[in-house]
Formats: sequence, C-alpha cells, structure tokens
Amino acid sequence: MRQYLLIPGPTPLPDEVLAASGQQMISHRSTEFARLLAETLEALRRVLLTRGAILPFASSGTGGLEATIVNLCSPGDTVVAVCGGAFGARFADIAEAFGIKVNRVEVPWGQAADPEAVRRALQETPDARAVLVAHSETSTGVRNDLAAIASVVREWPALMVADAVSSAGAVELRTDEWGVDVVITASQKALMAPPGVALIGVSERAWEAVKVARLPRFYWSFERMRAELGDVEAFTPFTPAISVVRALHAGLRMVEAEGLEARWARHRRTARAVRAGVRALGLRVVPREEDASEAVTAVWVPDGVDSTALLTRLRTEHGVVLAGGPGRMHGKIFRFGHLGWVPDEAVLAGLRALEAVLPEVGGPAGRGAEAAAAEILAMEG
Amino acid sequence: MRQYLLIPGPTPLPDEVLAASGQQMISHRSTEFARLLAETLEALRRVLLTRGAILPFASSGTGGLEATIVNLCSPGDTVVAVCGGAFGARFADIAEAFGIKVNRVEVPWGQAADPEAVRRALQETPDARAVLVAHSETSTGVRNDLAAIASVVREWPALMVADAVSSAGAVELRTDEWGVDVVITASQKALMAPPGVALIGVSERAWEAVKVARLPRFYWSFERMRAELGDVEAFTPFTPAISVVRALHAGLRMVEAEGLEARWARHRRTARAVRAGVRALGLRVVPREEDASEAVTAVWVPDGVDSTALLTRLRTEHGVVLAGGPGRMHGKIFRFGHLGWVPDEAVLAGLRALEAVLPEVGGPAGRGAEAAAAEILAMEG
Repeated sequence: MRQYLLIPGPTPLPDEVLAASGQQMISHRSTEFARLLAETLEALRRVLLTRGAILPFASSGTGGLEATIVNLCSPGDTVVAVCGGAFGARFADIAEAFGIKVNRVEVPWGQAADPEAVRRALQETPDARAVLVAHSETSTGVRNDLAAIASVVREWPALMVADAVSSAGAVELRTDEWGVDVVITASQKALMAPPGVALIGVSERAWEAVKVARLPRFYWSFERMRAELGDVEAFTPFTPAISVVRALHAGLRMVEAEGLEARWARHRRTARAVRAGVRALGLRVVPREEDASEAVTAVWVPDGVDSTALLTRLRTEHGVVLAGGPGRMHGKIFRFGHLGWVPDEAVLAGLRALEAVLPEVGGPAGRGAEAAAAEILAMEG
Repeated sequence: MRQYLLIPGPTPLPDEVLAASGQQMISHRSTEFARLLAETLEALRRVLLTRGAILPFASSGTGGLEATIVNLCSPGDTVVAVCGGAFGARFADIAEAFGIKVNRVEVPWGQAADPEAVRRALQETPDARAVLVAHSETSTGVRNDLAAIASVVREWPALMVADAVSSAGAVELRTDEWGVDVVITASQKALMAPPGVALIGVSERAWEAVKVARLPRFYWSFERMRAELGDVEAFTPFTPAISVVRALHAGLRMVEAEGLEARWARHRRTARAVRAGVRALGLRVVPREEDASEAVTAVWVPDGVDSTALLTRLRTEHGVVLAGGPGRMHGKIFRFGHLGWVPDEAVLAGLRALEAVLPEVGGPAGRGAEAAAAEILAMEG
C-alpha cells in the first residue's frame, strides 16, 4: 500500500533528496563538502530573505531553540515568550531551564497571539532581552502574525526571535524586512530533508547581544560556529550531519526552482483546500480561517470519536499517516500536515481516507471532501 | 577515479547502510521507527558490552561530550581530564566552559596516559566528580589503556567517563566489566553510519550523579531522554535524526554479523598492516607500537615534506583521502583512518598511493609498503 506521510514534519523526501541522502560518505574537510555547505547556507539566506549569517548545527530544531537562548542571554535576564501552543511553551521552558525569567504571554491554544498582548508584556518588562514567538505553531496549526509582532517589538530594545521551524519555505517569512533578529528553522519540514540539522539566522543586532551574553556554551556557541565557518562558510567546528546537509542542499534547489512566492502560494492553496475538505466532512478546524498556518491544519476530533482509532485506521487501511495532538491537545485534535513536498494527489488521498474512515469510528458521515478540496486546487492551480 | 575515504571518520558507508540512508521518510512516532530505535539501542548495548541505558541524541560526538558534562556536574565541581590530544583537551575545555574546575593530566601528544598519573591527579583532587578519558585519541592515533585507568578510578568516588567516539566497534571496549560509568560514541565512526547521532551509555552509578547534578540542561537532559524513551525505548523527546538512526541500525547489523571479537581482531590486523606499510616507506608512526589505536594510524610528516601537498596529491591523483593533523599537530602529522568498513583492498590502495606520492613531494623513496602490509594481512587473515 502506498504511504502518504501527512504529518507536520518530518516530511516526505522528493526523489532528488532521496538520491542525495543515499550517496557515499565524503570528508567534512573536503572541497566537495565545503562547496555543498557554502551553497546551502547561501540558498538559505535567499529562502529566509536575510543577509545575516546562517549557522548550521547538528541537532533537532529544539537544539536550535536552546542554542538561541544560551547565545543571547545572561543569567537573570528576562525574555517575553508567546505561549499559545506546545512549541511556544517549549521555547519558554528552555529559557527557564537556563535561569532566565520568562514573562509568558498566554494565548488560548488554537488562537493567534494578539500583537497588543506582546506590547503589554514589553511594557511590564521593558528590559526584556528578547521576544520569543513560534511563527507557525505546529501543535495547533496557528500562524502567528510575525510581521505585526516584530513591528511592536522594534519599539523596545528586545530582540525579535522567531521559531520558524515549520514555517520557513512554506509560509511567507521576510526575516530582514520584518525586523526578525534571530530565526530558527530545521531541515525536516518545508525544506524537505531528513531531520538532523537546525539552522539559525543571526542578524548584526543579535551578534551584539551574543558578545555580552554570559550563559555558558560550547557546542552551541554562535561565535565558535561563525569563526569556523569563516568567510567561505565551508566548515563547522564539529562533525556536521553530512548526509542531511547534502539532502538539504538538494531540497533547497527544489525550493528555489519552484520560487519562493510560488511556494508560499502553493502552500496557501493546499492549506485552503485541506480546510475546505475537512469542513465538507462536518469537522471543525482549530484556528480561525485568517490565523490558520499554511503548513499544517489542526482539526477538532469530533465528539464520540477516539483519535487513536481514527489515526490507526487511516494508517493501516489507507496508508495515510496523520498526526495526533501533542501534550494537552492529545485526543482532542488531529493534525494534517501539508508542508514541503506534498502534491495535490496526496492531499486528496488523505481527504478521501478521512471521509471513508470517519463514519467507521463513530464520526460524521460527511461527503464531498475531495470535491471541495479539488475545487480550490483547480481554481488557484 | 575510485575514492578511498581513509580518514578517522566519517567512514565509508557499506551498501546496506547506503540503502538504509536513502529510504523514504517515516514518522518518528510510527511503530516502524519505534522498532528501529529499540533494536538499535539493544544492539548498541551488545556492542558496548553494557546493560545500562543508551541515550541517542541528534548531535555530533562533541554534543555527546557536552551532554555528559551538564548531566553529571554542578557548578564548582572538579573533574580530572586526561589531555593527550585534541579530543582529550576538548573534553576538558567543555567542562571548563561550564564552570567546572579541571585537573588536567597533561600527556605529551602521541603518548598514552600513564594510569599512575591519573592516580596522582585523584590524590590531588579526591573529590573529583569524574575522570574524563578519550579511549582512542583520534588526533594522535593513541589508544589509552582504559581498563587500567578505570581500575585506578574505581578506588575513588569519581565516575569513569570514556569518550569512545572512535573506539566503539573497532577497539576492545568492555564498558561494564571495566567499570566505565559513562561511555560516549557516535554514528559516523566504526558503526559505519553517517554523522548526526551521539550515543551515550549511562550506568546505574552515573544515574545517581545525574539526580544531584545541577548544571542547567534541556536538550541534553538525560532524565528527559530516559523518560521519553520509556521501557520500550521507542521514542525521543525531540525529533530524532531518522535517516541516521536507520543507517546506524543497518551498520549495527553488520557489526553483529561480523562478531565483536572478530571485529576487534580485524581492526588490530588492519592497523598492524598499515603501520608495517608506512614503516616500510621509512616513515615513523606517532605512538609506540603498544599504544597505537586500532582505529587510526598517525604518522609523522617527513622532514621537507609539505603535508598539504602530500594530502592533495594523494586525493587528486590517486583518489586516496587521508586526514591531516588537527590543532597543534597541523602540518606535523598525517592520519590514515582504518575503522569501520575498510576492506584490505582499500588499505593497500592507500599504501600504494603513499609510496607513489611521497618521493614526488620531497619525501623518502621507500619501497614495499604494500608487500609489508599484505604479509600481515595474509598471516592473520
């Protein structure tokens, strides 16, 4: 049975990326690797729309969040953290684990953050070192309005830090133009590579903060990474995840071949189609239409339906792999990922399977999910 | 031109590992991944000869060293660190970066540590929390006598911590029997997978230290990792490097098919053959015969030879990739890696190329490297 991996990352690997993934090992000190890494970081600057340095760490995205905290902060510092889902809360938890005071902007899970709430938090803690926001909150399918939040943050000395792990390459993101000082993403989401590399864009303003930040760091040191990368951006201080970098290089070529604006538009279109499809089945999408992330759609599990039964049947009988709800959302929502390399056909297969399985597990016997989605895909295709 | 990757990691990938590397992505929450991870950790216990937990982190080996420090230590603690090469010194530097006092046992680079020097250090700092030793010191090709050092350390409360990044799977290593409390290795050396996963074996005694250690940690938290792995050892707290874990699973199958003792014997034989070959060319091996690592052979660059010219010519004209000397050894030594999946043929090709290139770059015009090596390979084959 064909598998449709429709989770919000790791995402399916296109053939070009698979081929890159399965190549013979090379030395991380070779000219071949140097060229691969330099081209990868240069492409990432174009995808993130930044002229700043991009630092590649062998780690998951969470490692990238931790690296950001320990490079920007000193013990006793305060940060403002937008907590509207599992990943926003995780960023706040990391800061607290390192002795940072966190002024949490609590947002009901499933809603986008109000930029005015961020303003009030900065008024309470005007010396905040940074404001931490998950751009696309993968746990609830919400896209926070990063441009609006960043424009509020710029009135204070705080650095604007964006977790763009599930947004970069899928959702409109203009790092420099919006005034985002640090942007964190990872290889395994819209960039279509396997997991294992976190990527951190660092603005000149953020480098000033790094210079005075006193939290201890070694593996995560931005300065050590920048020094080793050098002007040629060829080498890393510690052995890089070579096969993942190679896959990322291939993924980024495909991102650039598609075009950034076209890619954002495709993800918008796909996301709208998925929302229309699940609504046709009588299901409710978690965020409001205008706050929905283009990377993943979170859907309330209908009353009387066991989410595990739903997900298991989708997987075993239709080859459709969706994700459950993380943390406090477990059992309450399911998530349909549509970021990276997700052709229309996979989206439609996912919706068809949902339509078939829902009534079998006690859910609504809605009809027409595929047609509703196909209409949108055709209109804007 | 066929490439012979003969550096001390990352190592060449066997076909089975390449095939595993290039497979389509799966969910890190799937039963398929759960089985892969559980089998991988179980196999690692057999390879490391330990019954303790094995914790897999998405990071390089250096990340594993940092994780060990922040999980075992509290601010103001003291550790003893054997510093006889770049990796021993790095472990000490990491501890210092986190505010740990380091009693350095300085060993001339290229020599093995004297267990009695470790004893003297423990007499000076009897409250040391841990003793840090690189088992195979990749920078100088030295194997430290871990069994002897561990037996000294056991007279003190200090934990025995071994960096086994380039030894595990190549060099005799009996974690539990020797009393090694924490052992760190990585995917890209003798385990024959791409880089991107650090693996840390933690004894029950070490868990007691973790409970009271107060250095801040989040990504590296041993306790968070153990809790998420659970009894089934199926899942990690943060997205694992799935393709690398899959490759590691394939690599470990090959390690076990060969057999651990046979594998150690093969590495001993290959290492002896390489040493005989380079000596036939009039070159000097860095460590004494009895201290030479089975994973990598470090060789002094002969007078009048530019090491960069030597390595470049080997690579461009013969497809043979050797490594230079790291840090203070730069230009003084070169390193011939022979760990993991390095067939006799590759070793002989490396030696033939050395014999051809050396006189071209002003080195000795020795003869018979291949014959000297082949004799040993045949004797013990």
